Amino acid sequence: MKVLVVGATGAIGSAVAQALAGRGHEVIRAGRTRGDHQVDITNDASVEALYAAVGRVDAIVSTAGGLFFGPLSEMTSANFNVGLQDKLLGQVRLALLGQHVLRDGGSITLTTGVAADDPVRGGGNAAAVNAGVEGFVKGAAVELARGLRINAVSPTLLTESMEAYGALFPGVETVSAARVALAYVRSVEGPLTGRVFRVWQ
Amino acid sequence: MKVLVVGATGAIGSAVAQALAGRGHEVIRAGRTRGDHQVDITNDASVEALYAAVGRVDAIVSTAGGLFFGPLSEMTSANFNVGLQDKLLGQVRLALLGQHVLRDGGSITLTTGVAADDPVRGGGNAAAVNAGVEGFVKGAAVELARGLRINAVSPTLLTESMEAYGALFPGVETVSAARVALAYVRSVEGPLTGRVFRVWQ
Repeated sequence: MKVLVVGATGAIGSAVAQALAGRGHEVIRAGRTRGDHQVDITNDASVEALYAAVGRVDAIVSTAGGLFFGPLSEMTSANFNVGLQDKLLGQVRLALLGQHVLRDGGSITLTTGVAADDPVRGGGNAAAVNAGVEGFVKGAAVELARGLRINAVSPTLLTESMEAYGALFPGVETVSAARVALAYVRSVEGPLTGRVFRVWQ
Repeated sequence: MKVLVVGATGAIGSAVAQALAGRGHEVIRAGRTRGDHQVDITNDASVEALYAAVGRVDAIVSTAGGLFFGPLSEMTSANFNVGLQDKLLGQVRLALLGQHVLRDGGSITLTTGVAADDPVRGGGNAAAVNAGVEGFVKGAAVELARGLRINAVSPTLLTESMEAYGALFPGVETVSAARVALAYVRSVEGPLTGRVFRVWQ
């Protein structure tokens, strides 16, 4: 399959790209500043330009999207909108525009995260955005045409991200990026749609 | 208790206001164009002005917020952002600013909807927005100070809205607005927090 990975230079995305390439897929790597193509997922024209450059694909994988972290007591609606525009609407944009460039039977796989189910301090935005992405996946799955599928992967804290984000997740058992990547393989190659693959413990 | 109901002139909000008033609470009704106070929940200054006018309250109830409905195949990111800015960020704004005007032990109750769990055609935005509100409620509950609580009520199709929206929900058993209002009473007067009260069947 020809697979486009958006966010392919991040901790999860690079593991996903490596896993897919190792299984014989043609992987095209897009990132905000690195990779084969650059894309700003908060911008329609930028995503359209990416799809025009890449052409028709069998699968679109997104491991991209920023969130706002900070205490609820000081959070503003502008802070909150950061995650809405980036990780939520950014990934939805990849899907809405992407449905038209996928080959019949193709798939879209988005990324959420454990904070939707097990909230963390400072994670009010993360909880909402991740849950919103999961809701979109469920809603979109019942409408996609031409046998297209859509799923989300919800990873817990990566072992590789322990140093950067460990303080947010006290006592949480981490998972390796390689293990998280398996869930993306399952979404891309398997038959399921409208599902959230949780990779915890 | 002194309870502010935002969206108090809608089908659900008017039933909630009536139920709360019937239980002896002082109810202040806010709406976009009607009610005791007018408010635009998509605007920080408008919500701040509402809270300044109303003063300290024991409970904030929101039954407000617009969504975008339309086929996924034609949906744009601008369409999708309608619900993000209105029903999702609008209600989050009521909560973020509202946490500072609630008395100790007060509560916030937001509104989601059945489409987060059981998607409908044309409801990709509704599924995401409702799920996002539910995620926010879970995330915010673990951080609210001073014994403040936050919950969401997820109604299915109202009997009173059958004529307007029935075509979207084939075969769905409706519930009366009066029955949905009970869930808001439960959130306002009960001890629970971080919960979604689903009012289905």
